[in-house]
Amino acid sequence: MIEKKKATPISKLGEFGLIEHLTKDIKPKNKETIEGIGDDAAILDYGDNLQVVTTDLLVEGIHFNLMYVPLKHLGYKSIMVNLSDVFAMNARPLQVTVSLAISNKFSIEAIEELYRGMREACDKFNVDLVGGDTTSSLTGLVISVTALGKVKKGEVSRRSGSKVNDLIVVTGDLGGAYMGLQLLERENEVFKVDHNMKPQLEGYDYILKRQLRPEARGDIIEFFKEQNIIPTSMIDISDGLSSELLHICKESKTGCNLYEDKVPLDSQTKKFAEELNINPLVTALNGGEDYELLFTINMNDYEKLKNNPDFTFIGNITEKEKGANLVTTLDGRSIPLTAQGWNPLK
Amino acid sequence: MIEKKKATPISKLGEFGLIEHLTKDIKPKNKETIEGIGDDAAILDYGDNLQVVTTDLLVEGIHFNLMYVPLKHLGYKSIMVNLSDVFAMNARPLQVTVSLAISNKFSIEAIEELYRGMREACDKFNVDLVGGDTTSSLTGLVISVTALGKVKKGEVSRRSGSKVNDLIVVTGDLGGAYMGLQLLERENEVFKVDHNMKPQLEGYDYILKRQLRPEARGDIIEFFKEQNIIPTSMIDISDGLSSELLHICKESKTGCNLYEDKVPLDSQTKKFAEELNINPLVTALNGGEDYELLFTINMNDYEKLKNNPDFTFIGNITEKEKGANLVTTLDGRSIPLTAQGWNPLK
Repeated sequence: MIEKKKATPISKLGEFGLIEHLTKDIKPKNKETIEGIGDDAAILDYGDNLQVVTTDLLVEGIHFNLMYVPLKHLGYKSIMVNLSDVFAMNARPLQVTVSLAISNKFSIEAIEELYRGMREACDKFNVDLVGGDTTSSLTGLVISVTALGKVKKGEVSRRSGSKVNDLIVVTGDLGGAYMGLQLLERENEVFKVDHNMKPQLEGYDYILKRQLRPEARGDIIEFFKEQNIIPTSMIDISDGLSSELLHICKESKTGCNLYEDKVPLDSQTKKFAEELNINPLVTALNGGEDYELLFTINMNDYEKLKNNPDFTFIGNITEKEKGANLVTTLDGRSIPLTAQGWNPLK
Repeated sequence: MIEKKKATPISKLGEFGLIEHLTKDIKPKNKETIEGIGDDAAILDYGDNLQVVTTDLLVEGIHFNLMYVPLKHLGYKSIMVNLSDVFAMNARPLQVTVSLAISNKFSIEAIEELYRGMREACDKFNVDLVGGDTTSSLTGLVISVTALGKVKKGEVSRRSGSKVNDLIVVTGDLGGAYMGLQLLERENEVFKVDHNMKPQLEGYDYILKRQLRPEARGDIIEFFKEQNIIPTSMIDISDGLSSELLHICKESKTGCNLYEDKVPLDSQTKKFAEELNINPLVTALNGGEDYELLFTINMNDYEKLKNNPDFTFIGNITEKEKGANLVTTLDGRSIPLTAQGWNPLK
């Protein structure tokens, strides 16, 4: 049945392209559906508050390698990446559902470990695990998580709200999760050749933690609430800074200047990148999985953030015609920003 | 890491057992979470209405065989089974999210077919497809659907609400989906032996449709609203009548009498069951995937349903001490009802 018809490989479109292709003419039919596909989460209206809903699917061999990812960390991360999408809407997560497909190589104790990590992540932000589905798989482990959250009407931060002259801000530091993955993969290759080799992970605890046990930035959303800040646009960094900033510019119909020398990098990220002869900036721009928040604010909010070490000002929003640019340290030359984030359908 | 520790095979617990084991001490922390795990859907309070959320994971090779399931029907069914869970709470579905993991054997056109079926199912009940995730898989196709719906406070039907002397009612007829699957599998075996054999499906269009393209009973929920009926308990039939009725009795802390001769069976179901030397009643009790609604009502509502061909009265709720019984046609003898529904983790 599949073979008879025209068959275009999915790699032609990639993940974003395929979703856009399949959903481009889907229009909301219910008044309760404020916004559908296209942001970190959909926005729903169920009364006093808006509700946001987001979902992620993690597949063994594609998103994680159980050779070096402990199941508890995997459970923790699978929840955190969804909560991160809820926070990226300036919303508070309240519930998650979890569906698992499990092959018979897993024992009950193994799945308990996975659940322990999930529950730790839920507990950290007082999120309720309210349901799910558990079934078998012929090969590996598949984890599907849906997170629900709420936000007051008028306080939601979409990707589409950035305005010319807004400041571009990022939390924490970038590229660490990617370098942590490189380290784990290198040591795994060594182990495959010689099973007696102990992995050399000393001195890299920070980047390992960034990869294995990322923390969604719920603290930032609390801070915004305390300070009466509503970011004009916001997105979480799952695919790399370039890709996320381009999403904001595309949805907001704006351009941007991103300053190379402002991008925050941790010392371990820089050190290991140099060890592997990778430009550390590239790990931030294209690495992904940092789960930090990238957002824009009106200049009037600058004072509220400027002395807070959680935030780094990395650029500003410009007119669309000026394009999305990376301003390099090389005599201040601008080059067009391109997305080379991680693409699971490449 | 997995091997080092105690390793109990998951088959020891089965699907329901595993979920219960993993979630038994999870208690809601948010006031917005009215009910978590344990019903067709979780119940959430977001203001004027309650909201329900349910999720299902479908895995190629476990839940469907693409040798004989057209992708469009698969898409349709994957949405319908989730909407059915929403209806089983006496709620109206409003939104779904869809996550897909796709191996490279699928083309864009194939995924378009899948989506076409999904959108047809959404359109039938005016449901919005509001988001999702698309990624790759190393082997087959994985579909994860989450459905959201709403219901007025006080109108939700839980599994736990049946009372002694309530009448047990089922919609439509049962066992057809199971017999449709038997037919498809038989013809698929023939085809594997001789690729020139044409499948013999004539005269069995009804049971094939029951298996390939089930319809969730949204019409029944509308009828309840018009007639001011709120079932005291309700569940949809995904695992077979026995299993579902035992869920209601367990959650409601009641017993039941189910009358063998009242169970509604279609003529094609009976005919093909007899052809395969299966007792047709067994297809209804243990077959599953009919996606009809099983519910209980107070006797006062009897008049509103009695002449409607959509409904069959199949039994009554009793005290817990009397147990859950099947009253057979064999001199009216009662035998204990046992769940032998389809278990994907067996």
